[in-house]
Amino acid sequence: MKKSIRFSNSKVDYFFDENIRSLSKIADKKNTILITDENVFRLHEQKISSWKNVVISPGESNKVQATADGVISQLIEMGADRSTTLVGVGGGVITDLTGYVASVYMRGIPFGFIPTSLLAMVDASIGGKNGIDVGLYKNMVGCIRQPSFIIFDASFLKTLPDAEWRNGFAEIIKHASIMDASMFRKLENNDLSFYKQQKSDLSELIRRNVLLKSNVVQKDEFEKGDRKLLNFGHTLGHALENQYRLSHGEAISIGMVRASFLSQKMTRFDEAERVKMLLEKYGLPVHMDFDRDKMIDVLKMDKKKTKDAVNFILLDSIGKAVIQPIPIKQLHRNI
Amino acid sequence: MKKSIRFSNSKVDYFFDENIRSLSKIADKKNTILITDENVFRLHEQKISSWKNVVISPGESNKVQATADGVISQLIEMGADRSTTLVGVGGGVITDLTGYVASVYMRGIPFGFIPTSLLAMVDASIGGKNGIDVGLYKNMVGCIRQPSFIIFDASFLKTLPDAEWRNGFAEIIKHASIMDASMFRKLENNDLSFYKQQKSDLSELIRRNVLLKSNVVQKDEFEKGDRKLLNFGHTLGHALENQYRLSHGEAISIGMVRASFLSQKMTRFDEAERVKMLLEKYGLPVHMDFDRDKMIDVLKMDKKKTKDAVNFILLDSIGKAVIQPIPIKQLHRNI
Repeated sequence: MKKSIRFSNSKVDYFFDENIRSLSKIADKKNTILITDENVFRLHEQKISSWKNVVISPGESNKVQATADGVISQLIEMGADRSTTLVGVGGGVITDLTGYVASVYMRGIPFGFIPTSLLAMVDASIGGKNGIDVGLYKNMVGCIRQPSFIIFDASFLKTLPDAEWRNGFAEIIKHASIMDASMFRKLENNDLSFYKQQKSDLSELIRRNVLLKSNVVQKDEFEKGDRKLLNFGHTLGHALENQYRLSHGEAISIGMVRASFLSQKMTRFDEAERVKMLLEKYGLPVHMDFDRDKMIDVLKMDKKKTKDAVNFILLDSIGKAVIQPIPIKQLHRNI
Repeated sequence: MKKSIRFSNSKVDYFFDENIRSLSKIADKKNTILITDENVFRLHEQKISSWKNVVISPGESNKVQATADGVISQLIEMGADRSTTLVGVGGGVITDLTGYVASVYMRGIPFGFIPTSLLAMVDASIGGKNGIDVGLYKNMVGCIRQPSFIIFDASFLKTLPDAEWRNGFAEIIKHASIMDASMFRKLENNDLSFYKQQKSDLSELIRRNVLLKSNVVQKDEFEKGDRKLLNFGHTLGHALENQYRLSHGEAISIGMVRASFLSQKMTRFDEAERVKMLLEKYGLPVHMDFDRDKMIDVLKMDKKKTKDAVNFILLDSIGKAVIQPIPIKQLHRNI
């Protein structure tokens, strides 16, 4: 099923319930280069190796400028030019890095994504944000530029480790918490093994999350306003993720619980326990003891910070979020 | 004199015949960081040092990712956030690098320019192209993003070396050749020492070139069509510049002469000698013996290349240029 979404400067074609094989209908094999990582390549070699490809080392620690430099050198060697399309086949690290390289190589060439993790399908591949980490700071460098297409091929999820399923559900629960109370209830009524078994319910859940996020991005592509709401749980989450050995899903799960209880102090919200229970149901951690001073140092460099306040996303009710600037001086009492 | 120009996503304010001191009226001193190089800093320290600043090593060899990485680290240390404005104070290397860093730091922060060389004033600072070199390939990585403002302060030209004056006139003669026959005649009737002495004629020349280029960019910001005409002399010029010890002006001067004589073979153009004589009048080289095979290898990687042809810009008459794709196979006979 194809669905085209218009953003401010471009159009993105989503291909739902599709197969990586259909890439040959969209992209010219002679002039397309797949970017993937060693894990994805090993598990899906037969799907990838017939295309020109660049394979990088897996993991967030490789989402750095040095990796981008290496990819760019390889593109030059392969003779990539402005008519070449890059296709990121992988999780969020690959889609972020591919979008970034495609945005700056020769001042911008076309690109598309085939997300292979649930997290990349429902979140990382959507919305055009790309980038790399710099030291402790996540996504410190990058652009906002939309891909030309995204192919959703659920067959990649067959090889997805459990921890990665949980990462994906952390973002799904985030979407539900900030903008879809009915999806929140549906998630409460099911669980991870249900979605792993029920292909059509999973497909429907992916599509719904893709369209929910796309809708927010369409209205505010360059994050002047409501797109910031998607950062629910991420302000503290990003800081935790880089200081401790946590996955993205684990970090934002803890961040969402903190933000929910903070919401109870600062808004009319009174269902923090419900958010916590739903995250627990999907196997996500809901608490950790962290070094508050260290966290505050990292928060001071958060991109969402302006002048002397950090913008926290709080809940007003299940399905409705608000932005609340919290002065840095008051952070100690509030995180 | 302030003039605002609208581009597709943004507005740029030009401040003609201004002074760097007026920066304090445009930018908040507490939240602005100047990017400059050691030469400019040494010559104009009293104008710069009252602002927060980052000083890099001068020269095209420093227009590379490693320098951008270094600037980014310093921005992080200085606590630069999305409300910080970067201001590039320098020649083309500084404006290119500042625009690039500002485009990717935290996915894009505001920036402005104070060009200090004639070349940067009439060309490099205008149009939003930024970037870095990768190995032999000029501007291989970068973005197209417009600055918020440009301050033209001719007092910087007092310390400009002669070679840099010639570099600037190479681009001015390019503009005249491809789009302004009357400016071409005026340049023929004057010379370099005239413009160095006559402040108001120089100001007028700068303003005219800024507006000529801006007009082309306004119509085709993302270089799908007529903006390519600005590459007259640059296809071969860029390749020469990186293989031989030539300044940008010298390289494109030789490139323009080659392209003019090539035009005589391929279009109705018959005034290549006039182009050559004007460049000579402004002290620019018009010929060199180069290694043709080496050149063709570099041309194959030109950004303006698509598939198997390199797009050359040819003249149809003085003041009118056309795009002519030349198949790579035929390059040997034609450059």
